[in-house]
Amino acid sequence: MIAVLCGGVGAARFLGALSHVVDPSDTVGIVNTADDTVLHGLAICPDLDTVTYTLANAIDPDRGWGLSDESWRAMEALQRYADVRPQRSVAAPTWFNLGDRDLATHFYRTARLGEGATLSEVTAEICAAWQVRQRLVPMSDQRVSTVVTLADGGDVSFQEYFVKLHHGVPVTAVRFVGASEATLAPGVEGILKSAECIVIAPSNPIVSIGPIRALAEVDPILAARRSSVVAISPIIGGAALKGPADRMLNELGHESSVVGVARLYSPVAATLVIDPVDAHLAPAVEDAGMRAVITPSVMSSPEIGAELARVSLLAASVQ
Amino acid sequence: MIAVLCGGVGAARFLGALSHVVDPSDTVGIVNTADDTVLHGLAICPDLDTVTYTLANAIDPDRGWGLSDESWRAMEALQRYADVRPQRSVAAPTWFNLGDRDLATHFYRTARLGEGATLSEVTAEICAAWQVRQRLVPMSDQRVSTVVTLADGGDVSFQEYFVKLHHGVPVTAVRFVGASEATLAPGVEGILKSAECIVIAPSNPIVSIGPIRALAEVDPILAARRSSVVAISPIIGGAALKGPADRMLNELGHESSVVGVARLYSPVAATLVIDPVDAHLAPAVEDAGMRAVITPSVMSSPEIGAELARVSLLAASVQ
Repeated sequence: MIAVLCGGVGAARFLGALSHVVDPSDTVGIVNTADDTVLHGLAICPDLDTVTYTLANAIDPDRGWGLSDESWRAMEALQRYADVRPQRSVAAPTWFNLGDRDLATHFYRTARLGEGATLSEVTAEICAAWQVRQRLVPMSDQRVSTVVTLADGGDVSFQEYFVKLHHGVPVTAVRFVGASEATLAPGVEGILKSAECIVIAPSNPIVSIGPIRALAEVDPILAARRSSVVAISPIIGGAALKGPADRMLNELGHESSVVGVARLYSPVAATLVIDPVDAHLAPAVEDAGMRAVITPSVMSSPEIGAELARVSLLAASVQ
Repeated sequence: MIAVLCGGVGAARFLGALSHVVDPSDTVGIVNTADDTVLHGLAICPDLDTVTYTLANAIDPDRGWGLSDESWRAMEALQRYADVRPQRSVAAPTWFNLGDRDLATHFYRTARLGEGATLSEVTAEICAAWQVRQRLVPMSDQRVSTVVTLADGGDVSFQEYFVKLHHGVPVTAVRFVGASEATLAPGVEGILKSAECIVIAPSNPIVSIGPIRALAEVDPILAARRSSVVAISPIIGGAALKGPADRMLNELGHESSVVGVARLYSPVAATLVIDPVDAHLAPAVEDAGMRAVITPSVMSSPEIGAELARVSLLAASVQ
């Protein structure tokens, strides 16, 4: 069994690529839930949904989130209320788009959680509904919330930073509220211990992988089996393919490069997969304590994705 | 000021008709909330929404509920989850249709209630959003829930009876859970006491007007000013224009006729407006203790509606 630590888009693509190399039913994605939020009373799990919809071939390929063939009638109708809400109210938020078809997922999740089901249980049911062959588990059944401190003062939720502010403002700190009390979802500790190898997907090291690592059990388990843990750098040529990982790394005092990523991951992973554009940094990655494996890591075609998956698994097993 | 005790469709049409006779800003609709339910985590108030949408000229005229120009993409997408939910779960209910545009109303209401606003406050905001000129207030800010006991055993919520079972099964009892602890919404007692007259709209006497009357303060206030309270019979020629009022009356031991209605309302209202088809029952209505006023009460045109409103107000003021 292969375990993959996952954020959203990058992880979703990697899990898809992995299915060309190993039986998908033998793959477990352990997905960040610290981006989760409640809007309109609905339980929203952006990373879980991005991974699920991607693996179901239902994702909108251009946006990278939400469903294809989507409509936005509920959101359009919400504007009427945003225009009249009292000044102190944040009801009728129109900055977070929820497609009409996508809403069904949040309806189901909210209703099931209200019935007492755990997020793990609901996630398995949603995966079944979409006939996802991989197993997906939330990192925790308890609530963990990423809080971002902005350079100009004030704390915002991750979604406010990421969506409302278009991740366009500098940040000075990130913390994961609830992480110290939360535990891994049922079965995840066993998965992390017994998996043949663990892949850290090409996701944001701070806000996607960071919350998973913030759970007390995770880093010690990974460190104890470090040689079979491989990370894929989400930073290529100094930049993130998508999202604010590069800026966040800089703003929080890291280096936006494969070397900066290696410094973050070297306590828990022996190998870092880097793109050929970063080949010249391989010695610096090794100095940071990780073996560098060089292979194309922009998954621009199924073939490149499959090769990236193959090389990653090989890197984790040859140590 | 005119106060109108309201259920859904019949009351909505009557309030609309009333606006041709008196300044709508001088009208207060006190609306049944015992049909309210929570679905998908969303706070749904069917009667309030029917009245609001009707007065905003936004109601779907054929269905009589929900918005015109509506789409059903979220509901369609929900079926996927209904197909996989565990056997004991009632998540992803597809029997209660919520249109995509209509969802915005439930989103806003749910978010505002979550922020601590009262249902009265949210209702006023929703009315403002739709530029409804009448004032609408929920009967109570506390939760009251109609529970219907079916003849073949078992209790169901009002919406399960009305929508899921298409009000097609016999009932043996109706009760309003929470009514004895609930109080009238703020201001409603004053409205009931100071209104020039009170109209009981042509709504279901059992499940629409019944819950309002089940609140401790209501019947004594109405009884004390009985001569200026006028009811419009929702039963015409022995049948309800819409909904199960006729069958419910029979099943619960009343008579499905203007006489049965008069027996229910005579303690609190002096006058019953009945349609010419029931003119022969006027003496029996009077025997039941209510003055019978005969005027066309099927609001099939704005003119007939306006005349019904005019006659009703006149009946309440001439006593």
